[in-house]
Amino acid sequence: MLAVHIAQGKARVIDTPKPRPRRGFALLKMRVAGICNTDLELLRGYYGFSGIPGHEFVADVVACEDSAWIGKRVVGEINLACRKCSWCKRGLGRHCPRRTVLGIVKHPGAFAEFLTLPVANLLAVPKQIPDHLAVFTEPLAAACEILEQVKFAAGAEVAVLGDGKLGLLIAQVLSLSGLPVTLYGRTREKLDIVKPLGITTAWVSRKSPKVPQAAYRYVVDATGSAAGFTMAAGMVGPRGTLVMKSTVNGRTPVDFAPLIVNEITLVGSRCGPFREALKLLKANALQLEAMLSGEFPLEDAPTALDLAASPGVLKILLRSMT
Amino acid sequence: MLAVHIAQGKARVIDTPKPRPRRGFALLKMRVAGICNTDLELLRGYYGFSGIPGHEFVADVVACEDSAWIGKRVVGEINLACRKCSWCKRGLGRHCPRRTVLGIVKHPGAFAEFLTLPVANLLAVPKQIPDHLAVFTEPLAAACEILEQVKFAAGAEVAVLGDGKLGLLIAQVLSLSGLPVTLYGRTREKLDIVKPLGITTAWVSRKSPKVPQAAYRYVVDATGSAAGFTMAAGMVGPRGTLVMKSTVNGRTPVDFAPLIVNEITLVGSRCGPFREALKLLKANALQLEAMLSGEFPLEDAPTALDLAASPGVLKILLRSMT
Repeated sequence: MLAVHIAQGKARVIDTPKPRPRRGFALLKMRVAGICNTDLELLRGYYGFSGIPGHEFVADVVACEDSAWIGKRVVGEINLACRKCSWCKRGLGRHCPRRTVLGIVKHPGAFAEFLTLPVANLLAVPKQIPDHLAVFTEPLAAACEILEQVKFAAGAEVAVLGDGKLGLLIAQVLSLSGLPVTLYGRTREKLDIVKPLGITTAWVSRKSPKVPQAAYRYVVDATGSAAGFTMAAGMVGPRGTLVMKSTVNGRTPVDFAPLIVNEITLVGSRCGPFREALKLLKANALQLEAMLSGEFPLEDAPTALDLAASPGVLKILLRSMT
Repeated sequence: MLAVHIAQGKARVIDTPKPRPRRGFALLKMRVAGICNTDLELLRGYYGFSGIPGHEFVADVVACEDSAWIGKRVVGEINLACRKCSWCKRGLGRHCPRRTVLGIVKHPGAFAEFLTLPVANLLAVPKQIPDHLAVFTEPLAAACEILEQVKFAAGAEVAVLGDGKLGLLIAQVLSLSGLPVTLYGRTREKLDIVKPLGITTAWVSRKSPKVPQAAYRYVVDATGSAAGFTMAAGMVGPRGTLVMKSTVNGRTPVDFAPLIVNEITLVGSRCGPFREALKLLKANALQLEAMLSGEFPLEDAPTALDLAASPGVLKILLRSMT
């Protein structure tokens, strides 16, 4: 089968044997996969990754012990949990210490014609949701995770900082949950995408960034930069909450004194509930079409990855043509 | 009156006019004051402070519009709030943006024969509590603040890192609230202080510190060092909470990736409820006598401050002899 392989900071398309599903696993034939910033970081060699990346996908089940799954169009939870430890028993398999992670940690990913996942990880995609939108399930679930972790006071204003893919999804998810959201970002065209949802947008100058200080009870940092984190932290008022939704490679220098004096709560937030994401996609209330910047055949993945890393580009999809 | 004055990293005892209480304020005659690490930081010039420090005290009310207060032995909330803004109206005057802070921000402190405070800040000290224990009200309230901010799961194990004054108080407060506590520290003699409360203690080597990784649902960092923060962060398990109870001067380099992947919550925590602290002191269930390392007359404050900054020394008190 065709697959994208990353090693030593380079992506190549290779021919490699089709994976064989283990007991309890299904064999999936990829339809569409999405390029995430994490994939770009793997490509930059941040985590010493080598192998097949890709964790955002829509696929067809082509082999499975439980024949009821065969032929179904699915998305899949990316954390492969042991299902036995105390985390798994508490329903938090996403934090299982023995987990592998699709396309990220020790389990080959979705940038390939075929992939495998435990049947327990699969969710059927409702037929109303086309492939190019269903592929947003995983990042949308990550946005939904904020609502699982933070009990927002009704009507409290939320600032989302960062108009990248994740920031755009977070702003939409929080707005659809009924919260008044302001999205701060550096690119007017990206900010415009979420305006139809009634989200307030605020353009931040790259040269002399200005954001309101200590003004919000809730701020979400989706900037992916150390400077963005510092800016987001300054926007949180006393006793407020800063949701940390994007990672920065390496160490961020943090002045904890104001965070302690103002009794700020910082919440690290990662993967989220797929079911909630599918519900939102089914309701078709999100602005996602405008977030698509291009689609490439799987064999053109190196070009697609280059483009995905370019400024101003949002979601790039890979499609399996076989 | 005699007062301790800090300027340019030096503490001197000066003769200065007795303060005049403004409308709504009481004039207090200091009985005993406690030296806090914050005072040592002010002395080191960390905050560009100059003036009279001191925010832990027991005093007698000697002048007050409301004569019912006169002659009462009191402690006092250190944040002088405007009592008009939205923070004050929500009962969070400790976060009032216009506040001054006794002995720290623009209000002369308690290392003096006399000080002033708003009557609204005063609490009478029950007669069962002697001066040398009542002086712990303020730092004890700061320890109690953790219970206000974090809703602990019943029976969940808590690790407290740091066997300084604040760490010792936090371990005791959390233990008395019914939580199983382990106190980690570098000094066996300090750790021994809290053993009578049934607190588990764990000695950490200075040369090769070892602490359990991702082992606790709740960790409190009371180390006051960047290395301590990093160590405390590593002890928190997925979805766990790290309470940041001590500040480090300057910037701490933080690798946020594990905090985000493990969805850790960090809670900045500062001043707390005096009433809760007085309740604990009245119940006389804490080991505080063993935390006293010395008592000096106010005029010997420079010597007392030197001693308070020495390794192994815990609480040093200043007593007004007039």
